Amino acid sequence: MALKGEMLIFICDGVADRPVKELDGKTPLEAARTPNFDRLARLGENGLLDPIAPGVPAGSDTAHLALLGYDPYEYYTGRGPFEALGVGMDVRPGDVAFRCNFATVEERDGELLVKDRRAGRITEGTAELVAPLDGVELDGVKCFIKESTAHRAALVLRGDGLGAAVSDVDPHEEDAAVARAAGATPEDRKTAAVVNEFVELSYETLKGHAVNREREKRGLPPANIILPRGAGLAPHIPRVTQLYDLTAAAVVEVGLIRGIARYCGLDVVPLPPEVNGGLDTDLGAFMAATAEALEKYDLVLANVKGPDVAGHDGDAAAKVDVIERIDAAAAPLLENLPAGCHLALLGDHATPVAVRDHSGDAVPVVFWGPGARTDAVESFGERAAATGGASRLRGRDVLPILLNLADRAEKFGA
Amino acid sequence: MALKGEMLIFICDGVADRPVKELDGKTPLEAARTPNFDRLARLGENGLLDPIAPGVPAGSDTAHLALLGYDPYEYYTGRGPFEALGVGMDVRPGDVAFRCNFATVEERDGELLVKDRRAGRITEGTAELVAPLDGVELDGVKCFIKESTAHRAALVLRGDGLGAAVSDVDPHEEDAAVARAAGATPEDRKTAAVVNEFVELSYETLKGHAVNREREKRGLPPANIILPRGAGLAPHIPRVTQLYDLTAAAVVEVGLIRGIARYCGLDVVPLPPEVNGGLDTDLGAFMAATAEALEKYDLVLANVKGPDVAGHDGDAAAKVDVIERIDAAAAPLLENLPAGCHLALLGDHATPVAVRDHSGDAVPVVFWGPGARTDAVESFGERAAATGGASRLRGRDVLPILLNLADRAEKFGA
Repeated sequence: MALKGEMLIFICDGVADRPVKELDGKTPLEAARTPNFDRLARLGENGLLDPIAPGVPAGSDTAHLALLGYDPYEYYTGRGPFEALGVGMDVRPGDVAFRCNFATVEERDGELLVKDRRAGRITEGTAELVAPLDGVELDGVKCFIKESTAHRAALVLRGDGLGAAVSDVDPHEEDAAVARAAGATPEDRKTAAVVNEFVELSYETLKGHAVNREREKRGLPPANIILPRGAGLAPHIPRVTQLYDLTAAAVVEVGLIRGIARYCGLDVVPLPPEVNGGLDTDLGAFMAATAEALEKYDLVLANVKGPDVAGHDGDAAAKVDVIERIDAAAAPLLENLPAGCHLALLGDHATPVAVRDHSGDAVPVVFWGPGARTDAVESFGERAAATGGASRLRGRDVLPILLNLADRAEKFGA
Repeated sequence: MALKGEMLIFICDGVADRPVKELDGKTPLEAARTPNFDRLARLGENGLLDPIAPGVPAGSDTAHLALLGYDPYEYYTGRGPFEALGVGMDVRPGDVAFRCNFATVEERDGELLVKDRRAGRITEGTAELVAPLDGVELDGVKCFIKESTAHRAALVLRGDGLGAAVSDVDPHEEDAAVARAAGATPEDRKTAAVVNEFVELSYETLKGHAVNREREKRGLPPANIILPRGAGLAPHIPRVTQLYDLTAAAVVEVGLIRGIARYCGLDVVPLPPEVNGGLDTDLGAFMAATAEALEKYDLVLANVKGPDVAGHDGDAAAKVDVIERIDAAAAPLLENLPAGCHLALLGDHATPVAVRDHSGDAVPVVFWGPGARTDAVESFGERAAATGGASRLRGRDVLPILLNLADRAEKFGA
């Protein structure tokens, strides 16, 4: 009997792929030697899964919302809030958040003209640049800004009565004037006024900043303004822990997914710096942290990033290699799962090496544990999973299926 | 050609299960000898079906709404109305219905304190207790009450402008005061006022009732109040017969499903008392009634309860046995189906013996008849069905598929 057992959602990020010519038409997952994952496939129930819907390429953010049981079309309210979560900012329901670029502008006839939307793809000094701006209060609204990779940053506005239907300040082309954010409702206009004020302040603050004086000395375009775009209202997401009356933790390598997990109410397990989300991550430490989390929590979401990295690199051999290393490293975790534990092993989306980005291809999923049914599938892979007993599912089905197997699902009706 | 043939939805209640160790990892349905059902599987098209959605444990009420083609999330408006239908009450669209407990209260400082929420789990005399209350009119609202099993009852309010968003009178704990129902809108407040009056009346009526005088003599807690909870507005359900322009009947053993069938517009076929919904039900009489209904009606829904009973009992051997007896008893029905008849054979949900309750596991379904496709499936069972041609369906798909096979489906578009 499977009475309120543990649940593990084990995600090989971007693991699914398309047939690769240099792998004799196999996918990297099919070409990889994965005896441990194959064993799960052989003993569990397999299927194909569309993270969002057939053919829809999922972002890491929308895919993880779905895998945690949320309707991504309801809860995904734009890039801004999720970008801010991704860089580790504290985002709260009701905040309005933006993606931003550091850019280079020139004053001409009282206007600010965008000369370089990415400030020469600046890579250094961005933390120093945002420091004097982070935490300023404008019209009673707190403004938080944090640098992301290269020329990117995120802006979070926190205050009462803020709307998110505001137009972009970023004109999205060069030699155009910096736009003024605008909105239709009083709430949107309030946000627009704050954003416009923040953009002006960023120019006044950054144009003489030491980092920019140094850049100009070296002949580099100054990062003398911050251009927000993609406003989104941080959604009110009911916590997974409350929705299903359980404890939950995430073992994840990258900021965006960590941010989403935290936002959905999961504890985020601290990882040593060697667990870095790259191809050279410490897989042993990652698996050990996952095993440890399963001793303390009812639900654990684990995301290992390597396959996605290799997919983005377009490197089939590296993808095969990292999948094989993940499978090997997972052995002690899988051999010592708690007796009542049910597991879903899957990708969150495909990152085909031929595409070098996420695609809308379906991903394989295995459900395994004492209550799971079996089927005739013998290995963990795209085409094998397509013949499995679970047929075709959506990302949002994963958590309900695990809750059911773990005897934690509530009956609908009598 | 299958021109407007008959349709039979044959439901083995709770038949689906999980692998059972004592059955060598087979499910009871896989372990049972079912030559007649296997023949349907061999000659028809098979699939897995999620009554509501993957992983969601279905109630009998929500599952049958879905199998009759309704969106259960739209039409299932709470336990009250369906509980009342289940005990055989006349429930009409717009009625507000409640689940109730007989309880024991004591007066203290002008308050009524709940001493036992179940009146000592009273089993006898409840029909006599409700008799003086059934049919009373309060503030122009008719109140109907009927006893259910043990300490349970159902209350139906009928009148104009009643709302259903009212709080429970039942305080849900002992040594707490009886709560007063409350609501926010004028409609809800009207219902709340009637409920509060009814509860007071129940106390005045029951405290000196002969049944309670007798109970007190025997040292048993008196059932001296009725505590309603779980208010629900009886939904306006368009009748199956009107939606699809056909005649329809239900051959069912238990009250709740009988009530739902009637509410959806099906005639309910009277059955002899030997058809009792238990493991010792008269399966021959059940099958004969189903065959007879198919001579008179276009659509027949038949539900045989035994497998669910064995599942709730946690008795794998009894489940295998009753499945085998159902299969054998169905032979004359299946051999003599009308020539143009199409059939769906399925479970309405899983009731795994390991869980002893409904679970969210998918159920097998077979579509069979002159127009149905075939596949390679050779037997009626969970894992066999998962390899079938119909792949994975939802409960709501069953009736449209039968209507299509029976040439009764309307074209959507030109």
